[in-house]
This record gives sequence, structure tokens and C-alpha cells, in this order.
Amino acid sequence: MDERLKKQLEFILEIDKEKNIFRQTHLTGHGRNENDAEHAWHMAVMAWLLSEYSDEKIDVGHVMIMCLVHDLVEIDAGDTYAYDSKGKKTQAEREKKAADRIFGILPKDQEEKLKGLFNEFEENVTAEARFAHAMDNLQPLLLNDSNGGSDWKEHGIAVSQVKKRQEKCKGSSAVLFDEIMRIIEKNHKAGNLKD
Amino acid sequence: MDERLKKQLEFILEIDKEKNIFRQTHLTGHGRNENDAEHAWHMAVMAWLLSEYSDEKIDVGHVMIMCLVHDLVEIDAGDTYAYDSKGKKTQAEREKKAADRIFGILPKDQEEKLKGLFNEFEENVTAEARFAHAMDNLQPLLLNDSNGGSDWKEHGIAVSQVKKRQEKCKGSSAVLFDEIMRIIEKNHKAGNLKD
Repeated sequence: MDERLKKQLEFILEIDKEKNIFRQTHLTGHGRNENDAEHAWHMAVMAWLLSEYSDEKIDVGHVMIMCLVHDLVEIDAGDTYAYDSKGKKTQAEREKKAADRIFGILPKDQEEKLKGLFNEFEENVTAEARFAHAMDNLQPLLLNDSNGGSDWKEHGIAVSQVKKRQEKCKGSSAVLFDEIMRIIEKNHKAGNLKD
Repeated sequence: MDERLKKQLEFILEIDKEKNIFRQTHLTGHGRNENDAEHAWHMAVMAWLLSEYSDEKIDVGHVMIMCLVHDLVEIDAGDTYAYDSKGKKTQAEREKKAADRIFGILPKDQEEKLKGLFNEFEENVTAEARFAHAMDNLQPLLLNDSNGGSDWKEHGIAVSQVKKRQEKCKGSSAVLFDEIMRIIEKNHKAGNLKD
């Protein structure tokens, strides 16, 4: 078999492991914890469905692939919960190392493309990255809201923490930002988020 | 909230259920059964990575969204195993009904777009649909091969059944078709597929 295809197929098998990286978010209907592959799938479909609300010109296909691969580094680095301040300190270093190993399985040109997408998401400078962050924030918010804010209650999260997290997608979509804030306020009033 | 956005968010929550539709394929490392959302995520990433092997001109973004949504009807219709000849007889009818209900949650224009993508995949006439089928065939083949063909062995599948299934992606990519046939022959020789 061609060496290039061999590397690509090896990578495809390697990323199967993302299906075993579980997040703090629970599925609707008070289901089990969600995994990274499911989260990425949901985000990409959402990006396609909600792209009309972007206030900036975006390439939807580019947002979709960014959503699909943005968490692959967690195969090695693990999921760092959005409100885990200790884990956040070592996150960048762990994820950099993971990107080198996992994307390094691919042929050089594709390794660089995937590292580029991962870095673009992290740097959050482009319109596409901001919209991907809007999806990354809105997706677990919708699930958590449908479960009566149980994930926030379990971890004793404060409203200020959740609002702070939304800064990354500010300016991307006024409509979606308003909707995110409405959900947060609703859960604050209901006592699902602490003062 | 705006009526249009309300419908879109309702749909986004509804499709969360795809994460609970389990397939016959098992994850690498002799893992648990895979679900439809994970399968769709994997297919879409593969489409992006392997698009260079398409022998026809394809819009990769279009293939990706087709991969991401092609199994949504299974939320109502359930997964029909590729080699379940009895289930296959009622599949089209069950899936048509499911498409009406599930895509019907969306605003009319998006309902039509998603029905269009679903039908395009099923009719398998466009280059994008054929490439999506190549991903739909190759993805479980790679997982199953990595597990020593255990899914085929469990169901007593014959080599002719697996080969027949590949007809849907013939003409899409000679390189990937050859690789698919190589994996099938290897598993036939190893006794994982019956004569």
C-alpha cells in the first residue's frame, strides 16, 4: 500500500479513541456523559444550521472541519473541564504535546493543515474560529439547560464563570450571544447557577 | 425568541438522540458498539482527509454535511444492519416517515435542504453521494478489520455480501476501492468472512 494512504488510515484508526474521551456534559433526557466525538459532530451540524446568524462573513465548511477536529488533542491530553482552574494551567502544554504526536501520524502537509486548524481555534482570531467557539459554548449550554442545569449544579458553578466563558464568541453573532445570555439568566434565576 | 431560531434550537436538541442509536460495529480495541453520531463524525473527518482520492470532482463541504446528517432518520427508524435482509424490506418506508417528522421540526427551507441531502445520499447519483458512500463503507470496515473481523464473525457474514455492499461506491475512488477490496480479501483469507 502507498505510504501516504497508510499514514492516513493509521490516523483514522487513531482518532477512533476520541469516542472514549468523556466530557462533564450529559446528554438530553438526563442521559450519560457525552464524549468528544459526539460533541464535535453536534457542533459541526449546528454550525451548518446556524451560519445565517454569523455577523461576520464565514466559510461554513471551514468552521465545520474546525469543529470536527478541535478536540482531537484530548485523546492524549484528556478533557479539561471549562471551570477546572487547576487543569487549565497545564492545558496548553499538554495539548501542544498531543498535537505533535497525533497529527504527526499524518503525511507532513496534512499534519500542518490540522495543526493549523487546531491553532486557529485556540488563537480565536478569525471569524471562523469565533463562530466555532460560539458553537462550542452553545452546544453544552443547550444540553445542560434541557437537563435543568444539572451539570452546573453538580459542580457548583457561578453565573460569572459561565458568562466569562462566553467572551470568546462575543462579536461573532449578536442573535446567538443574546440567546446564550438568555439561557444563562434563566438558569441563574432558577438557582441552577450560583451568584 | 424568534420563531425561526426556536425551531432550529428544538431540532438541535432533538438530534441529540442520535447519540443513543447504536450500530453493529464495535470501536477499535474491541470496544463497545459505536453509535450513529460517532460514525457520522468519523465519516466527515475521513471525507476531508481522503478527498484527494476522489476520481470525480467533489465539493468536500457538501460531502461532509451529507455524512453528518445521513443517519438522522435512524432516531425514529432505528439502525438497519447492512446485512439484515428482513429489515431492509421496510427500511425505506420507516426512514421516509422519520425524515418527515424529524426534518419537519425545522423551518421549511432547512427542512427541504436536509431532506434533499438525505435523498441525495439514498439515490446515490451525484459524485458527492458516491464519495459519502465510500466513507460509509470504509469507516466500519477499518474498525472491524482492526478488531480481527469480529463483527463479521459474530453475524456469520459471507465475503459476497460485503463485496456486494461496495457497489454503491464503485467509480468514486479507484484507490479507496482497491484498499476496501484488499481488506475484504485479507479477512476472507483469515476466515473472518465466510465463503
